Amino acid sequence: MKKITILIHCKDRSNIIASVTNFIAKKNGNIVYLDQHVDRQQDIFFMRLESEFINDDFSTDTFKACFKKELADKLEMKWRIYSSDKVPKMALFISKYDHCLYDILGRYNSGELNLTIPFIISNHKDLKPIADNFKIPFYHIPVTKDTKIEAEDKQLELLEKHNIDFIVLARYMQIVSPKLINNYPNKIINIHHSFLPAFVGAKPYHSAYKRGVKIIGATSHYVTEELDAGPIIEQDVSRVTHAYTIKDLIAKGRDLEKIVLANAIKLHSERKVMVYNNKTVIFS
Amino acid sequence: MKKITILIHCKDRSNIIASVTNFIAKKNGNIVYLDQHVDRQQDIFFMRLESEFINDDFSTDTFKACFKKELADKLEMKWRIYSSDKVPKMALFISKYDHCLYDILGRYNSGELNLTIPFIISNHKDLKPIADNFKIPFYHIPVTKDTKIEAEDKQLELLEKHNIDFIVLARYMQIVSPKLINNYPNKIINIHHSFLPAFVGAKPYHSAYKRGVKIIGATSHYVTEELDAGPIIEQDVSRVTHAYTIKDLIAKGRDLEKIVLANAIKLHSERKVMVYNNKTVIFS
Amino acid sequence: MKKITILIHCKDRSNIIASVTNFIAKKNGNIVYLDQHVDRQQDIFFMRLESEFINDDFSTDTFKACFKKELADKLEMKWRIYSSDKVPKMALFISKYDHCLYDILGRYNSGELNLTIPFIISNHKDLKPIADNFKIPFYHIPVTKDTKIEAEDKQLELLEKHNIDFIVLARYMQIVSPKLINNYPNKIINIHHSFLPAFVGAKPYHSAYKRGVKIIGATSHYVTEELDAGPIIEQDVSRVTHAYTIKDLIAKGRDLEKIVLANAIKLHSERKVMVYNNKTVIFS
Amino acid sequence: MKKITILIHCKDRSNIIASVTNFIAKKNGNIVYLDQHVDRQQDIFFMRLESEFINDDFSTDTFKACFKKELADKLEMKWRIYSSDKVPKMALFISKYDHCLYDILGRYNSGELNLTIPFIISNHKDLKPIADNFKIPFYHIPVTKDTKIEAEDKQLELLEKHNIDFIVLARYMQIVSPKLINNYPNKIINIHHSFLPAFVGAKPYHSAYKRGVKIIGATSHYVTEELDAGPIIEQDVSRVTHAYTIKDLIAKGRDLEKIVLANAIKLHSERKVMVYNNKTVIFS
Repeated sequence: MKKITILIHCKDRSNIIASVTNFIAKKNGNIVYLDQHVDRQQDIFFMRLESEFINDDFSTDTFKACFKKELADKLEMKWRIYSSDKVPKMALFISKYDHCLYDILGRYNSGELNLTIPFIISNHKDLKPIADNFKIPFYHIPVTKDTKIEAEDKQLELLEKHNIDFIVLARYMQIVSPKLINNYPNKIINIHHSFLPAFVGAKPYHSAYKRGVKIIGATSHYVTEELDAGPIIEQDVSRVTHAYTIKDLIAKGRDLEKIVLANAIKLHSERKVMVYNNKTVIFS
Repeated sequence: MKKITILIHCKDRSNIIASVTNFIAKKNGNIVYLDQHVDRQQDIFFMRLESEFINDDFSTDTFKACFKKELADKLEMKWRIYSSDKVPKMALFISKYDHCLYDILGRYNSGELNLTIPFIISNHKDLKPIADNFKIPFYHIPVTKDTKIEAEDKQLELLEKHNIDFIVLARYMQIVSPKLINNYPNKIINIHHSFLPAFVGAKPYHSAYKRGVKIIGATSHYVTEELDAGPIIEQDVSRVTHAYTIKDLIAKGRDLEKIVLANAIKLHSERKVMVYNNKTVIFS
Repeated sequence: MKKITILIHCKDRSNIIASVTNFIAKKNGNIVYLDQHVDRQQDIFFMRLESEFINDDFSTDTFKACFKKELADKLEMKWRIYSSDKVPKMALFISKYDHCLYDILGRYNSGELNLTIPFIISNHKDLKPIADNFKIPFYHIPVTKDTKIEAEDKQLELLEKHNIDFIVLARYMQIVSPKLINNYPNKIINIHHSFLPAFVGAKPYHSAYKRGVKIIGATSHYVTEELDAGPIIEQDVSRVTHAYTIKDLIAKGRDLEKIVLANAIKLHSERKVMVYNNKTVIFS
Repeated sequence: MKKITILIHCKDRSNIIASVTNFIAKKNGNIVYLDQHVDRQQDIFFMRLESEFINDDFSTDTFKACFKKELADKLEMKWRIYSSDKVPKMALFISKYDHCLYDILGRYNSGELNLTIPFIISNHKDLKPIADNFKIPFYHIPVTKDTKIEAEDKQLELLEKHNIDFIVLARYMQIVSPKLINNYPNKIINIHHSFLPAFVGAKPYHSAYKRGVKIIGATSHYVTEELDAGPIIEQDVSRVTHAYTIKDLIAKGRDLEKIVLANAIKLHSERKVMVYNNKTVIFS
């Protein structure tokens, strides 16, 4: 049994669902999941569909070719088709904070995540022992003003060599360059330690403390060239009080950050996220 | 432009979605919403679909007849089809608590609810002035041990006379009889002031206080013959502390109760709830 | 039995709690609640204390005079003392939105709020029937560019005539002038329909929609001269999805707004809020 | 500078706070935190107080003796006094689930927890590699029907040898015996994977699935002889839908379990929990 996931978006028009579901039926697929969304402001149709094919000689490549020719080209669709037997490859970029790293690697080791982590990159050596414990190759690529371009070239080389599908900045603490972003559009996931769009940029817990908010948050989003302004994948919040010091906010925030980032990683790796107009459609 | 909502459930099999969406396409309908769910334990397929029909001579009755003959009977579906121009009629049963009543009537008056309230029934006169303010007919039907059957007959008479679609027990504080329940299966919505299945029955806030829980809840469910055991439509919770007295729990709980009940009313009146196996599928 | 509430803040130093509790003990008071907070960044001590006095001839005025002379002046405290038999007077400012109004008046009528509402002011006549239903005097004071000063003078006249303690802007939709703010410092409560500091100013739900946030919020704060930047009293949030239209966000937000505003009103009227450095200390 | 934490409970009476704060003042202590609670149903007074002492020759033992003689005996208090330089020792009991273990050890390694973990006990060998990675001694003590008493004696021996202060059952999956419970009263913390008192006992996620709840929870509580009925320390919940399979509920629940258990561990190890009448007072 083969299983594929199809993501589609196109200009809204009549009978798209019927056309797609018919196409699947004719190919002897059994639809096990279908969700759709119409953005009425933009007049765009979105769909996510999972289908199973029982015949042994099903070929994802052949299916893709048919899909393109018989359906997608006619309806001017943008589409992606994933075979469930192809597990995505995720690169982890870290710095000195370890809470998201422990959380991700704990989940990874337990088999909770449907992905592989070929390597970890860090601009500091501090967390190498954790990578070692979990037996994940660790590359120390220092980043300074002078070596930034060079460092990034090394990163890109590793990413390409390992055919990385997406990158997770697990509190990486560095602004990534347009070059990297353009190579991995909507494929670099960041965790920002505030409830965006509040407290963009550095030291959001300090700003939250100063403003006296009663709730703090964390936001996972795709990285775009504008800082902390990319499409939001997932957010969560926690209640705080006047009694919280900045240190308390940071500690409470760590739990938010790791859960929010883990959820974003799961949504992305299970191909449940579509991006359009700097926003996400999440089919979960 | 006519708009209809279709709710379907049946044994899961291949190509149901394709069959239904094709049928709609052939009738010149444009699907504007589709969601589906498969209960793999029970092997049941559920679908909710909204479709628009532009032709002036579209008749919901004709459509229903075709749907039954050409599709539903063949696939052994259980189905309901609603025309969006038919607004559901809701009867309110109340007692002495006014918070849910104020909340519902405030929303009703603001046009937030897509339904009509032909009348309010209460076993006490206390809240009649509120009904009067909102200009809703109020029937005082006292319920005592001796008059219970008689009272219920009066209730049923009113319900039938007004073609009531569903009943909301807005803290009615009386156990309704099997006769009423059987006349309105999965059409009587109750609000229970606990996080079910915890604290079934009377005085849940007292039980919550005694148990020392750190979170209280409210649950809206369809009424079945077993007390507080019907299909759950909506739940919500609030954090409390050791400093909350029973009175504080009750006060905090009122806000939960009214929001949860209002949400359940909206989901039901917008035909977003399907019931199967004493559970709900909520397409929202 | 008399009950008083004491709010104190002063520079932090040793033995403040001992000094205050001793003072109460000497006056034969029984402390039934005490909470304190030290802002270590600012080095400020805050305390809220409730005490009961059994003797019949207890006089709040005499107590205040003693407290000032024997304690507060020596420790350079800022303080307020409230007698529990003095119920605060709240003025409601409204415009055309009715959800917060219904919610507040429903609670008021049920006896949930420990305050009186001598009158409602609105710049529009639309909601007068609701005020009439609840039998609260309603003053229609239109506000235009040309009549703004005149309108405010009328508002101030009413506020002073009725000895109003605090003002609630229940979606008033007008920017109040510095003159009004200076007359009621930290006594004007606004409800802003976003999770501040995100989406300051007009149309926050439109901005939330555009940004694609996954959680919306509401914030109740004291009004200061800078728009939506005053001390935050209470916030709450709700989860939303890509499927929410702006209209859906507005509807969902209404439930947040009314609960958050009601909580802020309760905290303020029960004298549980202290303001310092544009932030609040909430003793709840 | 020495810092101590005092926990007191006794029958409520006048002037307790004044008596205690005076006592501290006379000993040249500076109170940096004070919170109190009166359970009016039981007429019990609770207090938590942190005080700093600057003098070099401050002795916690001497202070305790004075406190007992001059204050606690007179007011018939139950009390505990902790010196901040004594870090509590926590034993971890685990079985085959690793998510709570990774979470606790990750926090422990990062310095987030103010405690030491002298060893881990498990009835299975599966998670030994994780303990090894974090360099914590791991004792494999199998438990079968026949060896239960023997196994427990080994556990007790280890606990006593290491002067363990409290025990955490991090999904230990075994019912601990009255003997162990009586040796560590209100010192054994369990994490139960439901929103207690709903779904007591085995397989709560299966029960939650069957009941069709819209929210799942996790509860951390002290272990008493009655199963899952001990004093609740912390609870949290997550929203779920009809689309969640039992496997999905379990996965979602893991995140709840680890956060709730971590919070309970922090509250207990920071001496913020008092137990009375099978309930907790949490001073946080």
